[in-house]
Amino acid sequence: MARLGYVGLGVMGGRMAKRLLDAGHAVTGYNRTPSKADWLREAGMHWADSPRAVAESADVTFSMVTNTAALRAVTGGPDGILAGLEAGKIYVDMSTVSPAVSQELAAQVAEKGAHMLDAPVSGSVETLEKGKLSIMVGGDPDVFEKIKPILLDIGPKATYVGKNGLAVTMKIATNLSLAVQMLAFSEGVLLAEKSGIQREIAVEVLTNSVIASPMVKYRCPFVLNMPEEAWFNVNMMQKDMNLALELARQVDVPMPTTTITNEFLTAARAMGLAEYDFAILFEVLARMSGIQK
Amino acid sequence: MARLGYVGLGVMGGRMAKRLLDAGHAVTGYNRTPSKADWLREAGMHWADSPRAVAESADVTFSMVTNTAALRAVTGGPDGILAGLEAGKIYVDMSTVSPAVSQELAAQVAEKGAHMLDAPVSGSVETLEKGKLSIMVGGDPDVFEKIKPILLDIGPKATYVGKNGLAVTMKIATNLSLAVQMLAFSEGVLLAEKSGIQREIAVEVLTNSVIASPMVKYRCPFVLNMPEEAWFNVNMMQKDMNLALELARQVDVPMPTTTITNEFLTAARAMGLAEYDFAILFEVLARMSGIQK
Amino acid sequence: MARLGYVGLGVMGGRMAKRLLDAGHAVTGYNRTPSKADWLREAGMHWADSPRAVAESADVTFSMVTNTAALRAVTGGPDGILAGLEAGKIYVDMSTVSPAVSQELAAQVAEKGAHMLDAPVSGSVETLEKGKLSIMVGGDPDVFEKIKPILLDIGPKATYVGKNGLAVTMKIATNLSLAVQMLAFSEGVLLAEKSGIQREIAVEVLTNSVIASPMVKYRCPFVLNMPEEAWFNVNMMQKDMNLALELARQVDVPMPTTTITNEFLTAARAMGLAEYDFAILFEVLARMSGIQK
Amino acid sequence: MARLGYVGLGVMGGRMAKRLLDAGHAVTGYNRTPSKADWLREAGMHWADSPRAVAESADVTFSMVTNTAALRAVTGGPDGILAGLEAGKIYVDMSTVSPAVSQELAAQVAEKGAHMLDAPVSGSVETLEKGKLSIMVGGDPDVFEKIKPILLDIGPKATYVGKNGLAVTMKIATNLSLAVQMLAFSEGVLLAEKSGIQREIAVEVLTNSVIASPMVKYRCPFVLNMPEEAWFNVNMMQKDMNLALELARQVDVPMPTTTITNEFLTAARAMGLAEYDFAILFEVLARMSGIQK
Repeated sequence: MARLGYVGLGVMGGRMAKRLLDAGHAVTGYNRTPSKADWLREAGMHWADSPRAVAESADVTFSMVTNTAALRAVTGGPDGILAGLEAGKIYVDMSTVSPAVSQELAAQVAEKGAHMLDAPVSGSVETLEKGKLSIMVGGDPDVFEKIKPILLDIGPKATYVGKNGLAVTMKIATNLSLAVQMLAFSEGVLLAEKSGIQREIAVEVLTNSVIASPMVKYRCPFVLNMPEEAWFNVNMMQKDMNLALELARQVDVPMPTTTITNEFLTAARAMGLAEYDFAILFEVLARMSGIQK
Repeated sequence: MARLGYVGLGVMGGRMAKRLLDAGHAVTGYNRTPSKADWLREAGMHWADSPRAVAESADVTFSMVTNTAALRAVTGGPDGILAGLEAGKIYVDMSTVSPAVSQELAAQVAEKGAHMLDAPVSGSVETLEKGKLSIMVGGDPDVFEKIKPILLDIGPKATYVGKNGLAVTMKIATNLSLAVQMLAFSEGVLLAEKSGIQREIAVEVLTNSVIASPMVKYRCPFVLNMPEEAWFNVNMMQKDMNLALELARQVDVPMPTTTITNEFLTAARAMGLAEYDFAILFEVLARMSGIQK
Repeated sequence: MARLGYVGLGVMGGRMAKRLLDAGHAVTGYNRTPSKADWLREAGMHWADSPRAVAESADVTFSMVTNTAALRAVTGGPDGILAGLEAGKIYVDMSTVSPAVSQELAAQVAEKGAHMLDAPVSGSVETLEKGKLSIMVGGDPDVFEKIKPILLDIGPKATYVGKNGLAVTMKIATNLSLAVQMLAFSEGVLLAEKSGIQREIAVEVLTNSVIASPMVKYRCPFVLNMPEEAWFNVNMMQKDMNLALELARQVDVPMPTTTITNEFLTAARAMGLAEYDFAILFEVLARMSGIQK
Repeated sequence: MARLGYVGLGVMGGRMAKRLLDAGHAVTGYNRTPSKADWLREAGMHWADSPRAVAESADVTFSMVTNTAALRAVTGGPDGILAGLEAGKIYVDMSTVSPAVSQELAAQVAEKGAHMLDAPVSGSVETLEKGKLSIMVGGDPDVFEKIKPILLDIGPKATYVGKNGLAVTMKIATNLSLAVQMLAFSEGVLLAEKSGIQREIAVEVLTNSVIASPMVKYRCPFVLNMPEEAWFNVNMMQKDMNLALELARQVDVPMPTTTITNEFLTAARAMGLAEYDFAILFEVLARMSGIQK
């Protein structure tokens, strides 16, 4: 068992740290709001007072934060992960950030003689808890092979996709389908509903059909009862869509469904629905169809 | 066990008739090209010389044909199903046709004292053979309850969606997501590929991710090896998209992703790719991305 | 000067008949609602009691009606234009109908030894009154040359575009830009307005810029004061968009901007705005931008 | 007559400087490539060796450069315009850059006690030479009124749109319609052409119709003969579209036609057509319609 570190113990990161503990690893953790990690300390996790201290204590340090700014906050400065890394150590960032930022960070890690992998995951809290999370990995393939057993303690599938930055690229290329599938699903439900089929029945049929991806199964029932708390809100979804569109313009790939769906996320925000789960796309289309709650 | 009839023993219809035979029912069948039904006769199916003769011999007659014209051919005229129906008999059409045509046919069946249900299926040959086909049913709910056990011999799930015509409506509302999911998937693969990820890896990651619907799992590997023979070709897919868009304009539902995806099916046809499976949408987008085979 | 006939003396047709009278022609006219033609009778137009009587009295008969059904009503039956045509006469339909229907009618006219031209116009009442109407003509080029001087009495430009049906095709190919330009204009105004520019100023700048087509100049000020009475309402505009999309699928031309704009016309109808001029597209986009009147 | 300065004497800037000379002003100019300004020196323009020297010599300094980087190059550093400005002087930037960059520059100018206006133009070389250029102005309204007579020596219309940065915003909000109108025009031409109308005739009809904006009149004939040298190439057009989409996401305005058109500019680049005028959108759609040159 390895000495592991985990920085960023939120909804996703915390549960991943727990799986690592459950697999028998020694885990040292840090979170900006310490109280959120109490349950992990009770479960045997060591506490460190800074990201740097985590990196110093561990052979392999993981991080999982919400965006580029948060990643810079936990990696840079005198208390950051970079300051705690040294030759031979491994740093695995599981956040979804821009590929360019991830590559830049990998270069800084390499300057210290350490190795970085980008390792974002596909799946939600529910997928994670069911032990079904897929992990994509970018970076040096030998480093990947070395820590692959640890990654498999988090989820059952870890796929090497290419050099640094390509795993977050792959994540972004995956996520665009989340929003597009949601909007297409909404078109189907509203077409059925305005033709005379009950919304409940339309949702049931669709979530049992060939178009029912895990995303559709988990999230599309939200069109019946939109939860107060978002799993992945409009702003977070649009952040990923914007990353996809920006990359696509760099490598010259037209994105017809991504781009039109993104405009409906903009509409969601304009309608004051930004804090809802992105399944609120249904509500946007419902209003455009003349259905008001 | 009931006396059943089946008109239209093609790829899907034939396999459904076989499942009914396997469940112990007496089945009388008819197909325009008789030789295609030889294997069913060997499996115990009775042969009839016309759709009318099928309907005369059976308590419950099923049909499964490719489009509205074919449906009119097997139901109308002196040798058609309508001529063979009488009071109390049940007719179940499993084809995907326009809701208006299905409703019109149901009215003609009712004039004879018989009952019609529209019962299209969600799923492909593969879903069917695995015994996982979902059936949607429109028409009189009592008639549905009466024959539900027979439907469950075809597939594990039969859902009542509403009055006549609404099951084909539900089918159309489902199918639009097939094409949209395929195009969004293609955007993701091409974004990954042109960023430096191997196409094979991108497909593997996506077909194991939260966006992997059964459709994605079955069909998206086609972007690596496009089969010569289509499961569901561009023209058939566009027929369903056009039905969806036509309905949507009648009931006033905007269809942003459906409509833009439909234009790429048009492009596929313009590029001479109409006979391929609609997964060829990938090839259309690849050409727009400057990738020529 | 020729003996002319005009069937359909509404807003556009009546003003065209007036221009023919002003040019010195003898004009016999018919309108379903006779009172609407009183001003033309006062101006010297002869009245006939049926479309047939108009055609019998004239060497060249014009018609201008609102849609396919109205066209069939004035051309077919014992009192219709067809019944009044004979060898050598010329019939010019200026309505916007489907090319297929126009071609079918031309064939019926040819069977009588007469000649038909389709001659829709580009422009509105305002363009017509300013004497700036463009006319597109489909049919036999010799017949076009023969009556060209008469067409030039209506508007300054008459362009031969090809065989029967192609002029209405050209009209439809023109009209799709009306709606697309309107929606793009709306995107520009709302982008300016939500950035802090007054709507009045944005409209003024745009209607004096390089994007200001005559359509933009006439109609875009509607985003400041939407008239009660539509020049060309949402349903009429969508009828033309649907014709364009239908044709495009027949000849395999993808229509990205047309198709997405058409969905916003659907949204307009869903929001109860069908009777407004299609400039109401602005209001649809404003609502999606969170601006409520 | 005022003492004027002009930095950036390219295709547009040079011709504007010439109009100012023709109006009787004393003009001092600078251009990165001095030889391109020879014709202006012959016409009486004074030469300065740096942007700073221009600003020092003039009461009102204009600039017109191609993008943000170029603007920073001529304004910043020891030889930049900022270094030459002092209290009471006026600086007018006519470039199309991001509103944020323009506002930031205006703040720096204000720190020196000088005044900046952003004053982009709507129109091309042709519009400019015909003396029909429209100018939009952002900044202090009193400063605008003070130099308005000078602006009117450039073009016949100068419209005050609001505070600093809003004129470039208005310019961006105008330019999005250029590309959208071009793509809609292309849809119309290809629909006509594939229906049997000659391309030349379709273009003629459309450029004489109500949809013929000055942009359409000038540029759409390019679909018959694409010029070697672009007026405004795909990359420049996409730069403006990206600015529009970025702004729109900041102020929450959905941009359906802008965004879908932008993907066709991406396709143009992927097809190797980036250096052509953006009218090459026609060629992209033609290829998607199965038409290969």
